[in-house]
Amino acid sequence: MFDVKSVKDTFEIIRENFSDFNQKTEEIAIEEALGRILAEDLTAMEDIPAFDRSSVDGYAVISSETFGASESIPAQLTLAGEVRMGEKPEFQIIPGKSAYIPTGGELPIGADSVVMMEYTEDFKDGDIFINKASAPGNNVVYRGDDVREGSVVLKTGTKLRSQDIGMIAGIGCPVIKVYKKIAMAIISTGDEVVDIHQKPAGSQVRDINTYAVYASALKFGITPIKYGIINDDFERLSATVTKALKESDIVVISGGSSVGTKDVTVKVIETMGKPGVLVHGIAVKPGKPTILGKAGSKAIIGLPGHPASAFVIFNVFVRRLVEVMEKKSSYDRQTVRAVMDINYPSNGGREEYLPVTLSEKDGNLYASPVFGKSGMISTLTRSDGYIHITRGSEGVNKGQSVEVIIF
Amino acid sequence: MFDVKSVKDTFEIIRENFSDFNQKTEEIAIEEALGRILAEDLTAMEDIPAFDRSSVDGYAVISSETFGASESIPAQLTLAGEVRMGEKPEFQIIPGKSAYIPTGGELPIGADSVVMMEYTEDFKDGDIFINKASAPGNNVVYRGDDVREGSVVLKTGTKLRSQDIGMIAGIGCPVIKVYKKIAMAIISTGDEVVDIHQKPAGSQVRDINTYAVYASALKFGITPIKYGIINDDFERLSATVTKALKESDIVVISGGSSVGTKDVTVKVIETMGKPGVLVHGIAVKPGKPTILGKAGSKAIIGLPGHPASAFVIFNVFVRRLVEVMEKKSSYDRQTVRAVMDINYPSNGGREEYLPVTLSEKDGNLYASPVFGKSGMISTLTRSDGYIHITRGSEGVNKGQSVEVIIF
Repeated sequence: MFDVKSVKDTFEIIRENFSDFNQKTEEIAIEEALGRILAEDLTAMEDIPAFDRSSVDGYAVISSETFGASESIPAQLTLAGEVRMGEKPEFQIIPGKSAYIPTGGELPIGADSVVMMEYTEDFKDGDIFINKASAPGNNVVYRGDDVREGSVVLKTGTKLRSQDIGMIAGIGCPVIKVYKKIAMAIISTGDEVVDIHQKPAGSQVRDINTYAVYASALKFGITPIKYGIINDDFERLSATVTKALKESDIVVISGGSSVGTKDVTVKVIETMGKPGVLVHGIAVKPGKPTILGKAGSKAIIGLPGHPASAFVIFNVFVRRLVEVMEKKSSYDRQTVRAVMDINYPSNGGREEYLPVTLSEKDGNLYASPVFGKSGMISTLTRSDGYIHITRGSEGVNKGQSVEVIIF
Repeated sequence: MFDVKSVKDTFEIIRENFSDFNQKTEEIAIEEALGRILAEDLTAMEDIPAFDRSSVDGYAVISSETFGASESIPAQLTLAGEVRMGEKPEFQIIPGKSAYIPTGGELPIGADSVVMMEYTEDFKDGDIFINKASAPGNNVVYRGDDVREGSVVLKTGTKLRSQDIGMIAGIGCPVIKVYKKIAMAIISTGDEVVDIHQKPAGSQVRDINTYAVYASALKFGITPIKYGIINDDFERLSATVTKALKESDIVVISGGSSVGTKDVTVKVIETMGKPGVLVHGIAVKPGKPTILGKAGSKAIIGLPGHPASAFVIFNVFVRRLVEVMEKKSSYDRQTVRAVMDINYPSNGGREEYLPVTLSEKDGNLYASPVFGKSGMISTLTRSDGYIHITRGSEGVNKGQSVEVIIF
């Protein structure tokens, strides 16, 4: 019924179906803001600095009075006072006068320039010698030079970094409006899958996917919710997905690898509401058995059962889905360039996401494909990231520079 | 009294004084493990897989019976049964027999190879035709092939990524031992500094550093604790630092820029215990006024007052300090290579950490120095990272490739 979709088509289907996801907003304290996505333009409500400020320790002067000053012929000025940090100077600078001013101090009225300490001499008799000419505006940050009242300092959609949070403090916003975190339900299926608290008997295997997906979700800045392991039973899976759709924005079903599991997952997604299954199979290695569905405005994903495949698919497609549903203005994948240290032929023209190990030799970064038989979990920890081998390429040659997207 | 130290000497002083910091450990649930540092070697307590497993959907066979098989002369085998996921097969494969086996199913006794579905034909009469020879071990993952019982899968000091957490689930460790997070006390000083909830009057400025440092600490995976703003008063600052040293591992004092503030900070650090101040001034732009002290086993840092300078110094030196105190086996700075889009001459041979903005043009990544008068905060949000200009270099030329360390 469903054609296997190309990677490009799958991304396009994600964009078409989920970019209008109506992400709610909430107000949070600045202490909680790291990594959150701004849901309002932040506007400065006042000039910064709010006063003309010295950017050095020195003497506030009238610049024209220092013209021609040098060490041999200094300008001699009388001390009018001392500017104190955080206080408005109570004196003015008139011709013949100057005042000590610390870095960050407010420029006294009348002064238009600051001479650095090292170009002055204080004879402690009330006179200051200025040994260097100082142009108007020298070492002065004028009111509003840094941030202008009414200007937008951070835009809606910005994923807040620590330097942005410094700015938010600077304009005095202890509470900001951000988009709520995407909530992701994680369901494991498969009759052979047992909880990690349990010792597998016979040919059972532990539920790796729940935990790898849980940690990846935290890394993407979203909220994971565990729903445990559901056997390959339509009624039980259907009830769990129904509950999960109420409590989350994205439901991830990590499948056992049996045919029964896959069939049940597809059937359940089809019954959850319109439009149902959007993608059933992606033409990419790994990830052929991937399912993408939509019920109302929410997403349901069926991941491959193999942990290493599920991990790659989650990082490529679910990450993209999260980014489309979030109102983030830019993607922030961490990538590095590395040199392939082995020839890797293309997979018969099939698109591929190839996990690689990174290593440094003689100051160069090398990428080596992570080899291992299908379904191995030890390939997981050996994978630092992945490279994308496009369809129709002839693979990657030893010595070629590749872009590695870090897991 | 104190010579200004070079960057290299400062790093060496950090290493000498803090690498034996006795970081305590704690046990946490696997759900909390992302980004934590492992405090034990994790050893697999059993083979994975625990049984010989098929890596494809197909038929389990005795390989020697398929030799010479082709589409024109298929090997004809009788169906002995069907392997079920998670169940031990109750039949054996004897000569002339085969059994259906799903991906992940346990290989029945007697079989030594699996033929993929697509190379077989099932005439639904109890006979299976095998159209391709299958070598011994073909499509089989043997017991322990993936992870061997008794092998160390993750070492002490590993900073746990989501793929590592998948492995921890795989070996069945719901609880793991990690190093406690480093706790960092954040104190602001300066008579001119006011809380961000307050509107600055006259020439007061808001406390930006507390929040930029707080968010950076969270980003580094450590626990920040706010102590608010303390005026430039020896007794009050001394009492606060004493309390902070009891409650944290690193005390960061972000100074106002007045001379008074700096003097008080140094005096307070000197009275907190041996060995006292280790570094007073680093020969780097920005960051000359940086102070590094040690009281017992704990660190006390005096940051420059300017938010943009404090931010760079925190990212370079406090981050290094955190990494040395943590028992992490590797540093994980995020770096990118970019092309300088402007000539930037060296600062008279002085070492420099230069904040840059990154931008993409025609598929290339460019780094532009962030210009702004000293003390401006708008330079913060424009900085995506910094480049290191070493002492004695002649600066950086337009078109040169540089390594940008991301903030």
